[in-house]
Order: sequence, then C-alpha cells, then structure tokens
Amino acid sequence: MLTASICTIGDEILIGQVLDTNSYNIAQELSKIGVKVNYKSAIGDTLDEIISELEKCIKKSDVVIVTGGLGPTKDDITKVALKQLSNSNGYKYSEEQAAIIKRILTTRGIAITDINRDQALVPENCQVIENKLGTAPCMKFSFEKEKRKSLLYSLPGVPFEALGLLPDICTDIKSEFCIENVLYKTAVTFGIPESTLAKMIEEWEDGLPSTMKLAYLPNPTIGVRLRLSYYGDSIEEGENLIDEKFSILKEIIGDALYGWGETSLQKEIGKLLQDRSATLSTAESCTGGNIAHLITSVAGSSNYYRGGVVSYANEVKINSLGVNSETIDKYGAVSRECVEEMALGVLKLMDTDYSVATSGIAGPGGGSEEKPVGTCWIAVGYYDKKEAKVLSQRVNFASDRSRNIERFTSNALNFLRLTILNSTK
Amino acid sequence: MLTASICTIGDEILIGQVLDTNSYNIAQELSKIGVKVNYKSAIGDTLDEIISELEKCIKKSDVVIVTGGLGPTKDDITKVALKQLSNSNGYKYSEEQAAIIKRILTTRGIAITDINRDQALVPENCQVIENKLGTAPCMKFSFEKEKRKSLLYSLPGVPFEALGLLPDICTDIKSEFCIENVLYKTAVTFGIPESTLAKMIEEWEDGLPSTMKLAYLPNPTIGVRLRLSYYGDSIEEGENLIDEKFSILKEIIGDALYGWGETSLQKEIGKLLQDRSATLSTAESCTGGNIAHLITSVAGSSNYYRGGVVSYANEVKINSLGVNSETIDKYGAVSRECVEEMALGVLKLMDTDYSVATSGIAGPGGGSEEKPVGTCWIAVGYYDKKEAKVLSQRVNFASDRSRNIERFTSNALNFLRLTILNSTK
Repeated sequence: MLTASICTIGDEILIGQVLDTNSYNIAQELSKIGVKVNYKSAIGDTLDEIISELEKCIKKSDVVIVTGGLGPTKDDITKVALKQLSNSNGYKYSEEQAAIIKRILTTRGIAITDINRDQALVPENCQVIENKLGTAPCMKFSFEKEKRKSLLYSLPGVPFEALGLLPDICTDIKSEFCIENVLYKTAVTFGIPESTLAKMIEEWEDGLPSTMKLAYLPNPTIGVRLRLSYYGDSIEEGENLIDEKFSILKEIIGDALYGWGETSLQKEIGKLLQDRSATLSTAESCTGGNIAHLITSVAGSSNYYRGGVVSYANEVKINSLGVNSETIDKYGAVSRECVEEMALGVLKLMDTDYSVATSGIAGPGGGSEEKPVGTCWIAVGYYDKKEAKVLSQRVNFASDRSRNIERFTSNALNFLRLTILNSTK
Repeated sequence: MLTASICTIGDEILIGQVLDTNSYNIAQELSKIGVKVNYKSAIGDTLDEIISELEKCIKKSDVVIVTGGLGPTKDDITKVALKQLSNSNGYKYSEEQAAIIKRILTTRGIAITDINRDQALVPENCQVIENKLGTAPCMKFSFEKEKRKSLLYSLPGVPFEALGLLPDICTDIKSEFCIENVLYKTAVTFGIPESTLAKMIEEWEDGLPSTMKLAYLPNPTIGVRLRLSYYGDSIEEGENLIDEKFSILKEIIGDALYGWGETSLQKEIGKLLQDRSATLSTAESCTGGNIAHLITSVAGSSNYYRGGVVSYANEVKINSLGVNSETIDKYGAVSRECVEEMALGVLKLMDTDYSVATSGIAGPGGGSEEKPVGTCWIAVGYYDKKEAKVLSQRVNFASDRSRNIERFTSNALNFLRLTILNSTK
C-alpha cells in the first residue's frame, strides 16, 4: 500500500499556539484514495532540521506532504530548505503564482510589495501547483531513491488554503502512482451517541467481509460519520457491497442516518425545504445567531431562508417576536412556553412555512437548580392544513459555553430536520 | 533552554481518525514552565519503529513525552518497546497501579481480568507516576546521553487521562532540571495584511536583541498575532524588554494593535461596550448571523448585546428593519444606502447605543460587473450628542463563500471596534 509522511513546519504548532488540524485533514483525504500515512512530524523553522527531517520522510514514504513555513515573513524558510533539498541551482519566477498574487491583492485593494513579489519565486527543480486561495505557492518535487520515486508536495500552512489544494494533490498522486482500488462511502448520522451506535450495529459490523473496513468519524456539529471502505479489485463488486451493507444499516438506525458523504444537517435541511419549495425563519436566544449562520453557510440558502431574530434580551423577545411578557414572568425565558411563542412569532413575522427557535443557558453563569447550565428548549413551528403548529423538546448538556452553543445548535437543526421529514409534504 | 519531544503512538492519529489534541495540550503546558517543544511525531504500533523513533527523541530533547499504545489490547506495544529501550531485564508488578485498577474497575462494577492485572506490570527500570483517572500506568524513565540526563514520560493516549497527569509531570520536570526563563507575550492586530505589517515593522524587528524572537501567527478571524519571546536569565529584564519593544510597536501600528494574548475582536468589543455601559444590536444580511454568533460567544455578552435581525430576504429588511423599499429598488440591497438604513433601523428597533449592519455577496452566485462576489457593505450606527449617526465602508474579497462570510464578519467587527473607540465615551 502506498505510504505517506506529513511534516508540519513552524513553531506555532510545536509550542501549542495552534492546534494542528491540517495533518488531520490531509491524513483523511489520503486514506480515501488508499494512501496510508505511516509517519507524522512537526518541527521548528530551522534550516538544517527541516532538511534532515524531510530527508527522513522521503526515505520513509512514497508521498511527503509538507505544510507551513511559506509565509512572506522572515521566519518562514521552508522554500530555502526545499531549494537545497532538491539541489536547485536557484529560484525561478512562477508566472502563474505571480498572477494569482496580483489578482488576490488587487481585489482586496492591497498594494503589492516586494515581499509579495518574492512569494512567486520558487526553487528551480519544482513544479508549481496553483494555490487559488492564497499568495503562497504550492510546490511539487520529485525525488529518486533506490530507483523508486517519491513525491514531495509543499503546502501553505493556512488551513483553508491547504484544504483547498488537497483535491488537486490527490488527483496528482493517483496519476503518478498506480494505486489499488479503494472505494468508500460515508453515511452521516445524528442523534445516537457513538458508543450506543457501536452497540446497535455491532452484529452488522462483525458481518462485514474482510475486503471491507468501517471507520467511526465523530463530529460534534455533523454527527457520527460511518465510513465504509472497500479494498479490492472489482469496482463493481465494491460498489454493490457498499450499497448493500448501507441499505441494511439504514434499516437498523432509521432516520438517524440523514445523509451521505460531505453533507451536514444544514445542507440536508436545505434540500428538504427546496423539495417542498418551503421557507424557513429562525428565532434564537441562547444560540445567538449560530443556527442562522449555519443555515446561511449553505450556498443557495437565500432560496428558502428568509431571515431571523436574535432575541437575546427579553424586550426583543416581546417587542420583535410578540412573546407574551406574562409568559416570561410566569415560566421564565428558558421554558417550553416561551420558546414555542418565539417559534410561532417568527413564523408569522417572516411569513415562512417553518421556523426554529431556541432558548437556554449556555453558561458559565445563569444556571439554577431546576435549570442548570446546559439546559436548552428547542421549538419548531410549521403549518398543518394552513394551521400554525409548534413542537418542542428540552435538551441538556454539561459542557463549556462554546460547546453548549454548538450542541444546542446541532440538536435544534436535527429537530427541525425530523419535523420537516414528518410534516405532510 | 530545556527542550522536549512529544511522540504519539497509534494508527488512529496517523490515518486521521482522531484529531490529536494531546500533543497540543502537552506543548502548551510545557511552554508555560519554560520547556520548548522542538520536535513532535506520530508513528504506528510497530516495535522497531517505536524504539528507533524514541531513540531519536531522546537524542533531540531533554524531555520526551510519549502518549498512547498503553491499552490492554494486543496492538498496544509501547510497554514492550520501553522495556527494550530502557534495558530492563523484565517487568515488575506495580502495587500502586494495581490498586488503582482495582478501584476503578470495582466502582464501574467490572470484574477484573488477567488483562487488567497485566496492566500493572511495568518495565523494571521505570518509576510509576500515579494515573488516578485510568487503568494504564504512567511511567518515567531516565536516560544518560553524553553525561546529560534525558527523561522520558509515557502517558496513556486517552486525552482526559493525559491531561490529568500533566500537572504532576510538569512538577517533576521542574524538580529534575533547573529551567532557564522563557517569557512571551502576544500582541493581537487586525486590519493590516501580514506582508504589509512585515514591511511596516521590519526595522523594529531587525532591532530586536538576540535574546528575543518574533513569530507571526495570522488568523482570519482574530487577525495577525505577533508573539515576542524572551530567552534569558533575568525575568525582570525580559518583562521590561518585552513591554518596551511592544510600546514602540504600538506607536508604529497604532489602533491596528487591539489586544494582548488570548483575545479576539468580539472580546475587545465587549470590554469597550462595558467600559461605556453601552448596548449593541446587529442587522445582518450576507453574514447571516455570524456577527451575532461571535458577539454572543463571549461569556457575559448578555450584559451589552440586546439582539439582532438576520434580514436575508428584502421583505425582512423592509418590514423588520424599516429599510425604504425605494432604496433597494434604486441602489440595490448591496449598497451604502441600504446598509446604512439597516444599521439605523436596528439601532432604533432594539434601542441600543451601537449597531452594526452588513449587506454583501458571499457567493458563489449573485455577483455582477460592478458588484462582484466578495463585495460587502458594512455600516455602524451610533449616537453623537443624542443624534443617531451612521458610518459605512465597502470591503472586497475574492474567496469562497465561507471565507467571504468569515472576512465580512471580522471586518465588520473591526469597523465596529474602531467606531466605538473614536466615538465620544
């Protein structure tokens, strides 16, 4: 099996200033095309160290992915190291990269400095892969070791730029090496904790053939993703096996399985709404706009999302959403009664087919005996035969503020998804 | 300066099944006691590889922290590797660890198996550090290299167990070595691109003494963080030097330097508003609630943030924010005129001292010749001698949807911050 090393350059990862998500994402993408990461390392911005470490990676693996140290500033010296490592006599000026730098900076209205120009300089013996998202170039080097070639790709450290380059790099790797067939498909679930899920599907998992492998990929906002991989010769057999196994899985866990591949609750909600040509509005207290943010992070969401109110202060709940002040006096803002009035209020205010509302205590303050930090009421408004209806549920978590907000949000989205599914089309 | 290597053992980190937070947390704790992590690596569960990798770490650093590979299952062989590495003749039975295993399993109502008993077996030449949170032992080894001692600590991979052990291990390290002082402070800036900033402060940076090091840590939402480190003997000298250098920096870049350490635009905005006991509201179109989300991610934001409207549809801009429909017909929703009416509308609707509004094109669709994707109008409403005023600016980016939203948001927050700063207190 093709192997890869990932080397991260830069003090910020080493000393724990930045959490290293790059090597995590890179490893996932590589494993999808059947490349196994067998070594990972992080080193500082020291020339000798970078060179000797990369030599080690080249020895260890067929593919080497380097991230970081490509910024325009003095402390970034990856390019110098790569020039020596590749025995380049000097640097060449990459017209492609220069054009990208020019485009990015001019659209941002930033004057181009010599430092920017220098970013288009790359070691002679490298091939530039277009980095459309940033000013730092992505470079590809080829090395020979005992008649076996090993490829090194140097990526910028900025996560979204590195991520953006991965598809091109994976395509390039596949074209350079003949990789055995790896097929995979990911089922995305929400609402069943990983351990419970594992027990539920234990028998199914044990029944998988030796050519198949299951991976659990839990994610707080997306849910638990189940990636089923097939390592074999027959693509047809692989596709059939994967579909067959997943259709059985769907019977076991039902609506908790909500999508496939790179999806999310907000994307699936968007599909459901567009299928019904229905519209959505939001009324958020404790989630403070995060539901609206996720809904609108989906391209085309303006087709079904009309808007929302972030009603942090009670006056806003009363004045903008029409919540009855007596409701808040009697039951408190964090109550079934209040959140249901919020959902119905915004449903009418923005004249939409569906609405979702939240009111809870994210913490660290504001908790009480019967309503501790982590308590959240969620309501979904909708129409049943032209009559406005509302459903609500209470969820409880005991985490820090940001995690509570994250969980309130994803649970509200999931409750909205299930309500749309079950409401008459 | 005392150096440390962190080595993570286990496939799950390598192949991207688990995000490695351990080495991140360990690095942070070590840097706090003046230990600089100079190397990090992750390898699989292969005996030879573990041994050679750990030998490398011992050569590279004074302290080596190993995590993972201590589970009771067959594929966990860290202990075997450590036995060989430490030239232990065999294993010894750790009474302390056995007691802990017994306590943990009995409280969980689990019967103790031979496998559990074996977890109390550790290499002869190691010292056990109590792991109160789990059944796997934490082991300490001492190695001699060129008359210099290097310590290796083997921790379980389970994050909360590893975290729980860090305080004891840091105390142990401090007692074993006399640690040289390391001080660092981070200045946080926004509004000046990294390359421009580098040019602006080039002279200042070149003037730093050899005992100081500057690191650029760019972050799309926070801005460019500048970390100044001091490696020397006198804490007093270090603190004075850092303050002195930063006060000069502040003179060079002015209000672009907005905070210190672990801060953010939304945190600083919160401080400014509380200093003025002022309130804030938001009116968001293209940022779709992300500004509200970041503002409310700050604990205590309910003290100054009253709420907002996400006005995605034009009807919501008109009906909820009181934007004049003719304004939208004449200038379009993405215009200075519209965004200023949004800011003033929400300022009055929610009766706040400040408001911020956005209207732009996040993409991928919706762009035009004179208003391409990445165009965003930002407005800030405020009061000057009881009179409602509004300021606005246009920003342009050329990125993907999520990045555009991210940049629209942070630029709106920064524009709000500067307006609060410049408005009469």
